[in-house]
Amino acid sequence: GTGADNDLYINQAIVFIEDAIQYRSINHRVDSKSLWLYRWYYSRTCQWILSLTITVILALAFIEKPSSLTITSDVRYRPPAWNPPCGLTESIELLCFLVFIVDVSVKSYLIGWEEFWKNKWLLAYILTLVVSVTDWIVSLSFFCTEDVRIRRILRPFFLLQNSSMMKKTLKSINSTLPEMASVVLLLAVHLSLFTMFAMLLFARTKDGQQDKEWVGYFRNLPDSLTTLLVLLTTANNPDVMIPAYSKNRAYSIFFILFTVLGNLFLMNLLTAIIYNQFRGYLLKSVQSSLFRRRLGIRAAFEVLSSLKETPANAQQSYVSVRALLQVLQKVEMDSRCKQAIMRSLKMCSCDQLSAAQFQKLFEELDKDAIKQHPPSPQYQSQFMQKIQFAFGHPCFGYLGNVVALANIVSICVVLVMDADKQPSERDDFFLGAINCFFILYYLLEMLLKILAMGLKRYLSYPSNRFDGLLTVILLVLEIATFAVYGFPHPGWRPEFMGLLSLWDMVRLVNMLIVFRFLRIIPNMKFMALVVTTLLDLVKNLRAFAGILVVVFYAFAITGIMLFKGAVVPMGNIRYVGNKHSTSWPFFNLSNFMVDLVLGGCRESQCDFVALFGHFQADVIYYLLYLLSVNLICRWAKIYFVAWWLISSVIWVNLFVALLLENFIHKWDRRCHREPLSDIEYQRTVELMFRDVLEEPTEEELMEKLHQHPHLQLCR
Amino acid sequence: GTGADNDLYINQAIVFIEDAIQYRSINHRVDSKSLWLYRWYYSRTCQWILSLTITVILALAFIEKPSSLTITSDVRYRPPAWNPPCGLTESIELLCFLVFIVDVSVKSYLIGWEEFWKNKWLLAYILTLVVSVTDWIVSLSFFCTEDVRIRRILRPFFLLQNSSMMKKTLKSINSTLPEMASVVLLLAVHLSLFTMFAMLLFARTKDGQQDKEWVGYFRNLPDSLTTLLVLLTTANNPDVMIPAYSKNRAYSIFFILFTVLGNLFLMNLLTAIIYNQFRGYLLKSVQSSLFRRRLGIRAAFEVLSSLKETPANAQQSYVSVRALLQVLQKVEMDSRCKQAIMRSLKMCSCDQLSAAQFQKLFEELDKDAIKQHPPSPQYQSQFMQKIQFAFGHPCFGYLGNVVALANIVSICVVLVMDADKQPSERDDFFLGAINCFFILYYLLEMLLKILAMGLKRYLSYPSNRFDGLLTVILLVLEIATFAVYGFPHPGWRPEFMGLLSLWDMVRLVNMLIVFRFLRIIPNMKFMALVVTTLLDLVKNLRAFAGILVVVFYAFAITGIMLFKGAVVPMGNIRYVGNKHSTSWPFFNLSNFMVDLVLGGCRESQCDFVALFGHFQADVIYYLLYLLSVNLICRWAKIYFVAWWLISSVIWVNLFVALLLENFIHKWDRRCHREPLSDIEYQRTVELMFRDVLEEPTEEELMEKLHQHPHLQLCR
Repeated sequence: GTGADNDLYINQAIVFIEDAIQYRSINHRVDSKSLWLYRWYYSRTCQWILSLTITVILALAFIEKPSSLTITSDVRYRPPAWNPPCGLTESIELLCFLVFIVDVSVKSYLIGWEEFWKNKWLLAYILTLVVSVTDWIVSLSFFCTEDVRIRRILRPFFLLQNSSMMKKTLKSINSTLPEMASVVLLLAVHLSLFTMFAMLLFARTKDGQQDKEWVGYFRNLPDSLTTLLVLLTTANNPDVMIPAYSKNRAYSIFFILFTVLGNLFLMNLLTAIIYNQFRGYLLKSVQSSLFRRRLGIRAAFEVLSSLKETPANAQQSYVSVRALLQVLQKVEMDSRCKQAIMRSLKMCSCDQLSAAQFQKLFEELDKDAIKQHPPSPQYQSQFMQKIQFAFGHPCFGYLGNVVALANIVSICVVLVMDADKQPSERDDFFLGAINCFFILYYLLEMLLKILAMGLKRYLSYPSNRFDGLLTVILLVLEIATFAVYGFPHPGWRPEFMGLLSLWDMVRLVNMLIVFRFLRIIPNMKFMALVVTTLLDLVKNLRAFAGILVVVFYAFAITGIMLFKGAVVPMGNIRYVGNKHSTSWPFFNLSNFMVDLVLGGCRESQCDFVALFGHFQADVIYYLLYLLSVNLICRWAKIYFVAWWLISSVIWVNLFVALLLENFIHKWDRRCHREPLSDIEYQRTVELMFRDVLEEPTEEELMEKLHQHPHLQLCR
Repeated sequence: GTGADNDLYINQAIVFIEDAIQYRSINHRVDSKSLWLYRWYYSRTCQWILSLTITVILALAFIEKPSSLTITSDVRYRPPAWNPPCGLTESIELLCFLVFIVDVSVKSYLIGWEEFWKNKWLLAYILTLVVSVTDWIVSLSFFCTEDVRIRRILRPFFLLQNSSMMKKTLKSINSTLPEMASVVLLLAVHLSLFTMFAMLLFARTKDGQQDKEWVGYFRNLPDSLTTLLVLLTTANNPDVMIPAYSKNRAYSIFFILFTVLGNLFLMNLLTAIIYNQFRGYLLKSVQSSLFRRRLGIRAAFEVLSSLKETPANAQQSYVSVRALLQVLQKVEMDSRCKQAIMRSLKMCSCDQLSAAQFQKLFEELDKDAIKQHPPSPQYQSQFMQKIQFAFGHPCFGYLGNVVALANIVSICVVLVMDADKQPSERDDFFLGAINCFFILYYLLEMLLKILAMGLKRYLSYPSNRFDGLLTVILLVLEIATFAVYGFPHPGWRPEFMGLLSLWDMVRLVNMLIVFRFLRIIPNMKFMALVVTTLLDLVKNLRAFAGILVVVFYAFAITGIMLFKGAVVPMGNIRYVGNKHSTSWPFFNLSNFMVDLVLGGCRESQCDFVALFGHFQADVIYYLLYLLSVNLICRWAKIYFVAWWLISSVIWVNLFVALLLENFIHKWDRRCHREPLSDIEYQRTVELMFRDVLEEPTEEELMEKLHQHPHLQLCR
């Protein structure tokens, strides 16, 4: 009937508008039941459950068998790790798989059968699930004693497929690969030619004294290749050239040539290529988001205009205001935007909206949210007004900064004076007294500011919130200290009492004071610019970081599987061999994150930190050094070189490219918008590019709408 | 008289056109005598003498007193250096000063008195000369025994002031300084806040076992600062965090936070800022060169149009073709351009040239020199024609590449097989025989190519020249080997004879063969692009490299003066102290280039290589490590940190910025010009930007001309 039809149209419009708000694709089924399912699937609860499931399945690795999440990383002192009984992690896993199966079914159903076959991500998702479940069954039938668990390597895929940003980024990276491969090929040619040169140049001589270089670095082909590869990371520079150089200065020419060509030119060329490919990346991604938003709004308009109550009009389609209001009631969106749209609708006296008017209404979504700070309280008394003027003035804020600086300086002085004292000689009185005074000042400052601005206005500034929170924490700590240890007096060195010693309390207070000093950031223009750039960057980097996590995880699990039991603690020195030696599961994830390992392991502790270290190219030195000294197989070498290429070379370059892109846009914009800088905008990436973005044309939108696989437009 | 006037105008025109060709400013005196002086000053001989003088005065440091230019860099084996007698280097210096005095006088005279006072470079030049000469006199009056020689630090200024490109670049760098300073300030804040945090976090504890981190890295304020500064260069990562990390994994958060903020964000921000500032740098510089060229041509036109023989024309000025021909005869310029201009002049039937026509004639200067390869010889015999077709075909070249590759592979195989053999067991027969065969093939290839292409055409390709030269050298070496050691046979291991042993000969041949393999570069598209980018970059980098040399030199001399006698070789370990210990002049230039030193010095040798190492940030680790371990004063620390900032941070970032700029332009252009890629252009930086450059307008040119301080235009 017509009523049912109208309801359907209204529901479609609601979903399309929500799609537009969330920048989602509108290519899904649009019948009543599917719409209900769609809204349910994208409801906050469902998405939250999905994210939680992904987190849980990824986190499982930390408690699964080869794991030891302990406080110390030193294998000598580490207590044996807790091994969960067989079936515990497996049943959690099964739950996760069930959620994923529901997820993939709903997704597949919603985009429809025909689209499903075209969607490679969904197919890969199903394949991954099938493999994982099979592996799970095998695992259970062996009572968890099997060695290889393929499903663990596949886990990060669940994270990947759930984020459209990550998929998009991966596509971008993929398109850069051919050029990157060319440079990597060049590097390989460079490396191999120089290796041959080196082997000829530093050949074994008859005089054993003369060939230190040969003995140390160029004994055979793999050694030479490793040496030069490490030189490319600059880690063994200049050690590697010292023996030859001390024989004859001219040998340095070889090394300098190699480093200049490889390090200065080819490596930076990689940066240039990646930057060149990514120059348009942000803009393109924002442009396509804009297109999705306009398309959603337009689709909503089209379905609303097919409502039967609207008088048929041959020339142009219209949407009645009443219908739109009905839709808006039910749409889930930011309440500020909703109110703004309602207001504009009421102000517009017309009864019907054209497509352009409709689109215009929703431009509110793209706008900066201009933040209105609540007004200061109006005091009657002249004295209060004066106080308000004095303490609401920016100068009072500056004074606060100066006092904070003075506090830092005083702490610094005490630290320098106490540096060489024994802990037993230390007198905490001076620091205690000083901090007491400063914390009182901070409290006073906060109270006066609240008095001048009113609590609401005070809290509406992020810097005040930061300030206030820290002041309150400091106050609590200080009161706790006095309660436990009494008031400070000369020779104030009480015994340990309660949770923390006095010295620890004082240190904690001091750290918080140092941290509080960051409140000066918004007062320094250039710093503020840098900080906002960084924050923007962090937003844009989420997709990259996600991909990094995926790669990281896969590498870690592969490493655990490859090197299981290969590293054994032997007294103080860890013995690294390729033998299947004993049961000690060195490679485990908590501890892996551990070690794409060996990285930082000078002694017998190394970990996640080591992996992080890998971002710094030089750490690979120790790695490759250890690799060449110890008996590690070729495969491990390849594994580590691959990790170096991905983490240290490619990812860091991607990061630099994004930073350049972001910063240059920001910088240009800063110059344009100087006069407006007083107003606080809540900036989004979309807004950064607003001046450059192209609005999609009517034709493009309509063409796209007519290609919709499930929506039949009347006209 | 009119004749004299005409001669003057002709001479002026000649000089202006030469100015235009060399992109020189035309703001100099234009009377007859000055013009003669000007042409003399800019003649090749004069400029060559000036360059030579600069080279000589800079090179003096290598033989001056604290110097030891020896083959080995090992202080233990180094023979005592040759000390020139007092007065030798001083008299050379005096000669150089005289040349500079002439130079500055001529320059000052030529630009005229008024301009002279505005020109800060000239004033600084004079000041430098005065100080240098005074210092020279002091030096002589002490019979060369004085310690401090200020004039040595001032020397690089002579290099700086002689290059307009370097002056321009310096100005650019100067304009980037405020932004760079902001980031460096940020870095300083970052560093100092984290230092305080670290000192509070890793404070001395009562339990001596627990504070390894404190003992090792955070003992006091300077130590902590140094540790974190070095961490910023990633050199002591992850060593620095291992003690704390092995106590509690959570400590890694501190280090990760520090490294991510400092290294990943702030350091790359510096890159972004420098790139942002330099984005327009190349374009702007090329644009101003173009303006100078157009201005010179226009000035020539204006003076020629004032020639009395030209009929006065109220509307427009003209230049007679005859006068222009007369000028062209005397102008010193590339003969190809001259002929092309003459040809166009003859083809143009008119007798008078307007300003536009005149300008157009000289556009020949901006054009690509399209290289015409000489034609192949025409053979009569059909057999010869077939041979010509076969061996002139590109496939024959590819075959040559394949053979070269096969040769390399064979060498590589032999190297791998021989890697572990004692030199006495080695049999040179196999390599000798193989190389003999391959060299014969190369010879044959060369001869056949010459037969097919003719000698001239063969030599007109750079790749063939490279190829042929190496083949000839290889042949000569091979013949020499056979002449001395006889033909190879199994067990071919003759005793040492002549200049080089057989093994050395074979190695040399092999190295040349590896080098010859580079002929494949032009056959690989991406490689060719990269190589041309690099060559362009080298051209554009000359100014930067010059500035680097200036900074380098100044640092080296300062270092020599600061640390004179501070480093003493003691057996195997070099003792570094701040005491004025003994006479051994460790810091000397040849040997300094040596050591902004200590850098690479693990043992007792280190040098120029060490300095080069500094470009790799991590070397500073050893440096600062040594600094903190040994008793070196604060000033040395500041000196080294300054050097690190300039060489490793700023210069490398400038390099990256230039590379990005160059590469991105090149890349864009490659996409546009794909179809034309067969023609060989002799590309210059100017041409790279031709599509983007703006032609200066008539008004701009005339306004500039009327501002000329010495030229009075009639109208």
